[in-house]
Amino acid sequence: MNAPGRPNWDAATSRFVRIAALDDALGLIGWDQRTMMPEGSAESRAEMVATLEVMRHELLAGAALADYVAAAAGEVARDDDADGEWRRANVREMARSLAHARALPSDLVAARARAEGACEIRWRAARPAGDYAAVLPALAEVLGLAREAAATKGAAFGLAPYDALLDQHEAGLRAPRVDALFASLEDFLPDFLARALDRQARRPAPLPIAGPFPVARQRAIAHEMMAALGFDFRFGRLDETLHPFSGGAADDHRITTRYDEDDFAPALMGVLHETGHAIYDFGLPLAWRHQPVGTARGMVIHESQSLLVEMGVCRSRAFLGWAAPRIAAAFDGVGPEWSADNQWRRAALVKPDFIRVDADEVTYPAHILLRTRLERALLDRSLSPSDLPDAWTDGMRSLLGIVPPDDRLGCLQDIHWYVGSFGYFPTYTLGALAAAQLLAAARAADPDIEPGIARGDFAPLFSWLRSNIHGYGSLLSAEELIARATGRPLDTAAFEAHLTARYLG
Amino acid sequence: MNAPGRPNWDAATSRFVRIAALDDALGLIGWDQRTMMPEGSAESRAEMVATLEVMRHELLAGAALADYVAAAAGEVARDDDADGEWRRANVREMARSLAHARALPSDLVAARARAEGACEIRWRAARPAGDYAAVLPALAEVLGLAREAAATKGAAFGLAPYDALLDQHEAGLRAPRVDALFASLEDFLPDFLARALDRQARRPAPLPIAGPFPVARQRAIAHEMMAALGFDFRFGRLDETLHPFSGGAADDHRITTRYDEDDFAPALMGVLHETGHAIYDFGLPLAWRHQPVGTARGMVIHESQSLLVEMGVCRSRAFLGWAAPRIAAAFDGVGPEWSADNQWRRAALVKPDFIRVDADEVTYPAHILLRTRLERALLDRSLSPSDLPDAWTDGMRSLLGIVPPDDRLGCLQDIHWYVGSFGYFPTYTLGALAAAQLLAAARAADPDIEPGIARGDFAPLFSWLRSNIHGYGSLLSAEELIARATGRPLDTAAFEAHLTARYLG
Repeated sequence: MNAPGRPNWDAATSRFVRIAALDDALGLIGWDQRTMMPEGSAESRAEMVATLEVMRHELLAGAALADYVAAAAGEVARDDDADGEWRRANVREMARSLAHARALPSDLVAARARAEGACEIRWRAARPAGDYAAVLPALAEVLGLAREAAATKGAAFGLAPYDALLDQHEAGLRAPRVDALFASLEDFLPDFLARALDRQARRPAPLPIAGPFPVARQRAIAHEMMAALGFDFRFGRLDETLHPFSGGAADDHRITTRYDEDDFAPALMGVLHETGHAIYDFGLPLAWRHQPVGTARGMVIHESQSLLVEMGVCRSRAFLGWAAPRIAAAFDGVGPEWSADNQWRRAALVKPDFIRVDADEVTYPAHILLRTRLERALLDRSLSPSDLPDAWTDGMRSLLGIVPPDDRLGCLQDIHWYVGSFGYFPTYTLGALAAAQLLAAARAADPDIEPGIARGDFAPLFSWLRSNIHGYGSLLSAEELIARATGRPLDTAAFEAHLTARYLG
Repeated sequence: MNAPGRPNWDAATSRFVRIAALDDALGLIGWDQRTMMPEGSAESRAEMVATLEVMRHELLAGAALADYVAAAAGEVARDDDADGEWRRANVREMARSLAHARALPSDLVAARARAEGACEIRWRAARPAGDYAAVLPALAEVLGLAREAAATKGAAFGLAPYDALLDQHEAGLRAPRVDALFASLEDFLPDFLARALDRQARRPAPLPIAGPFPVARQRAIAHEMMAALGFDFRFGRLDETLHPFSGGAADDHRITTRYDEDDFAPALMGVLHETGHAIYDFGLPLAWRHQPVGTARGMVIHESQSLLVEMGVCRSRAFLGWAAPRIAAAFDGVGPEWSADNQWRRAALVKPDFIRVDADEVTYPAHILLRTRLERALLDRSLSPSDLPDAWTDGMRSLLGIVPPDDRLGCLQDIHWYVGSFGYFPTYTLGALAAAQLLAAARAADPDIEPGIARGDFAPLFSWLRSNIHGYGSLLSAEELIARATGRPLDTAAFEAHLTARYLG
C-alpha cells in the first residue's frame, strides 16, 4: 500500500490505521456492553464510549489530517499501477470521512455521544415497561442534537439536512432517490399484500411444529448452518443477547441472537441474516484493511448481503429442501410438520404484525415507510416527539391495518432514534431491493448457483458475491456497485418479481 | 475537582480523562482477549492493542500536556482548601506518568508493543508444548527492547536501569530496598521452611476430599464467598480463563478463574485472591476517578490487598471456621474431611513445587527470589536468554531443592517476561510483607476485626482498609501508606511472625 515518495499519503494512511483501531475497540466494547457488561457499569461505560468517540472525531477532524489528505490526492493522482485506482478511491473516502467529521464541532459530537448514551440507558428500561414518557425527555434531547447536526452538515455540504444524514449511512444517497423507489413500492405493495394474504388464506395453514426446542440444540443447528454458509468460527463467535446484532472487529465477527424455546425459527433465521453481514465483512479486500476504501460500502449494500442470505437463500424452497432434514434431525423431529415443504411454508408466511425485526419480507417495507415518514417529520419539526406514539398508531393503521396495543409494540421497539440514528431506516428497504436484484443477476450469471443452494453448496453464490460486491470494499458507490454487478441501476423490478414468484407463484 | 481560574489544571485533567478512557478500553479488550476472542483474531488483536498503546503513549508524551502539567503545578501550589493536597498529588502523579512516557521515543513504544504482542502469541502456543525454543527468538527481541527501554529511562531519570523498571510498577521502589528486604527473608526462610516441613511431617496428613466437584457448584460457592467478602456483582463479573487474572474498567471489575473438577480449592482461593484486588479498586476515591491520584497506588499495595484477603484472611483458621460448613454444603459434603480443621490444614499445606501461582506462602518467596535474580541477569546481559532454562533449573535446585522436569513447569510458566514485564516480580513478595504488616496493624487497631472474620463479617476489616489504604488512591507513596497505616516502615517482621504463628504455632 505504501510507496516511496508519497509522504502525505503515508501520513494520512497511518492516521487511518489509528482510527480503525479505535473503531475496532469501540466495536468490541459495544459487543461487550450488550452481552457481558454488569448492569451497574452502564453509566461509566457510556462515558468511556463518549470519550473515545470524541477522540475519534478529533483524530478525523484535525487540520493536520486534512492537509495530508489534500496533498495525498496530488501524490496519487497519476498513479498508473494496479493500485492507482484504489489509492485514489481511498483518498476520496478519506476526504468523505473528514468532511463528515469536520462539519461538526467537537462539543456537538461530545454532547451527542453523552445524550445518546444516557438515552440508550433509559430506553433499555422504558422499552420492556412500555413507558414512553420515561424516555421522552432524553429522546427530545437526542432529537434536538440530531437536528442540529443535520442542519450543520447540510449547510457545510450544500445538502438538505435529511440528505446529510442519509449520506452518513450510504455515500451519495439522497431523499429524492429514496422517494422515487419508495413511491414505486407504494404503488405495488398494498395490492400485492392483499393478494398474497388472500392466496395464503385459501390454502391450508402450515402445520405447527411443537416445542420446546432446547437452547443447546438451537445453538448447535445455528452453528451448523452458519458453518455451512461459510462462517469461519476461527474468526468469529455466536452469542446471546436480548437485542440481536452483529459487530466485532478485524478478524473477529460477532453475531448475537435470542433463543425462544417455543419456536426455533426466529433465532435460526436471525442468525442466518447476521451471517450474511459477516460473510460480506469476511470478503472485504484484505490489502486495504484499516483504510476507508477497504471497509464495507454503506448500509444499503450491507443490508443487501444479509437479506440476500436470509430472504433470498434461506427462506427459499431450494435451501429448505437441503436444510429441513438437518433442522429436523437437530431436534429429533419426525412427522409431516418437519417436511421441507411445511418448513418452507412456515418460513414464507405473510402476516401484518407490530414488530419490524420479526416482519416478513412483504410487510417489512411498510415498517420502513412508516419510520422514514416519521423521522423526517421529527427532524423538520412537523411532528413533536410527544406526539410520536399517536402518529405511530395512525401510521400502522393506515399502512398495515393494525394498531399496536402499547408503545412497547410501537414506537419503543427500535433502538435507532434513541441513540440518535436518523436517516438509517431507508437503507433496510433499499437493501431488500438490492438483494433481489443482485441475486437475480447472480443466478443469471452462474447457472450452478441455484442447484448449489439446493445441495447445500454455497460456494458458487459467494464466489460471485465476492467478485462482484465484497471484494470491492468502498471502491465504488453503492449505485455503481449494483449497476456494474447487475447491468442496470437499482430499481424495484427484481424485488417485485421475487415477491410475485414466491407468494403468488 | 475543577475550579475557576485554573485553566492549565483543567486542560491537564481533561486529557487524563481521555487517557483513562483508553486504559479502560484496553482493560476490557484485554479481558476479552483472554476469555472470548476467537483464536484466529490473535494477530489482528495484537496489532490493534499496539496501535492503542502508541496512541496512549503519544497522548501522555505530547509537549502540550507537559506544559499544562508544569503550569498546573503553579496553579494549585498554594490551594489551602480540603482538596489542595489531592490536587498537588494529582499534579505530581501526572508528572510521574509523563516522565515515564516522555523518556521513551514513540517508535520504541510501538516496537515494544508489537514485539510483545507477537511474543505473547508464541508463548501461548509454546507453554503447553513445553517448547522454549519456539518462543526464544521472540523473547530475545522483547528482552532487547526492554533493555533499551530500561537504559533510556534510567538515563532520563538518573537511575540504574533496573530501578527505572521497578519504578514503573511501584513509584519510588529501588533495587537496594528490594535487596535489603529480600536479604532478610533469605536469612529467615530456608531454616523456617525446613522447620515447617519437619513439623508438618510429624503430624498426620490432612484427609483428602474426594471429587469430582462440578463446575456449576464451584462457581456457586465462589460467587457466595465473593459476595460475602463484599464483591458487588452489579459492578463486576466472574468468568473462566486458562490463566486467571483480574481486570476490567471503571465500575466493572472482572475476575477470572480456572476450575479443576478434581480439587475445588485452587479455584476458590484464586478467586478470593482476585477479590482482594477488586475490593481495593472498589474502595478507590471516587472523587478522583479517571485522574492519576485516584488510581491504585502501585503493585506492592495491590498485591498486599489480594494477599491480605487470600493468605491473611481466607486461609486462616478463623475464616475457615465460618466458611468450611458453607463450602461443605455447596458440594453436599459430609464427613470429617469437610471439618473446618481439616479444610484449614489443607489450605495451609507447605510443599515446595514448580508452579509459582500454586505455591504456598512459605515457598512463594523462593519463586520470586529466583525470578528477580534471573531477570536482573537477563537485563544486564550476564545471562543469555538461551541459557535461561538451565539457570532456572539450577535456581530451583538451590532454592527449593527440586528440579522441574520440563520448561512448561519451569521458565515457560509465567507470562511476564514474554510480554516485556521486567521489574514486576519483586512486588509480589513485597506485597506479601505489606499484607502481613497491614493485617497485624488492623487487628491491633480494631479488636472486632478478628471475631468479625470468624463470624463471616468482614466489614470491620474492610472499613479499616478503606480508611487506611484504599481511600488514599495514589495520594501517598507505598512506603508512606504502609508507614502511616502501621506506624513503621515496611519490614519482614510481621510476615515472619505470621508464618511462625501459622506454621509453627
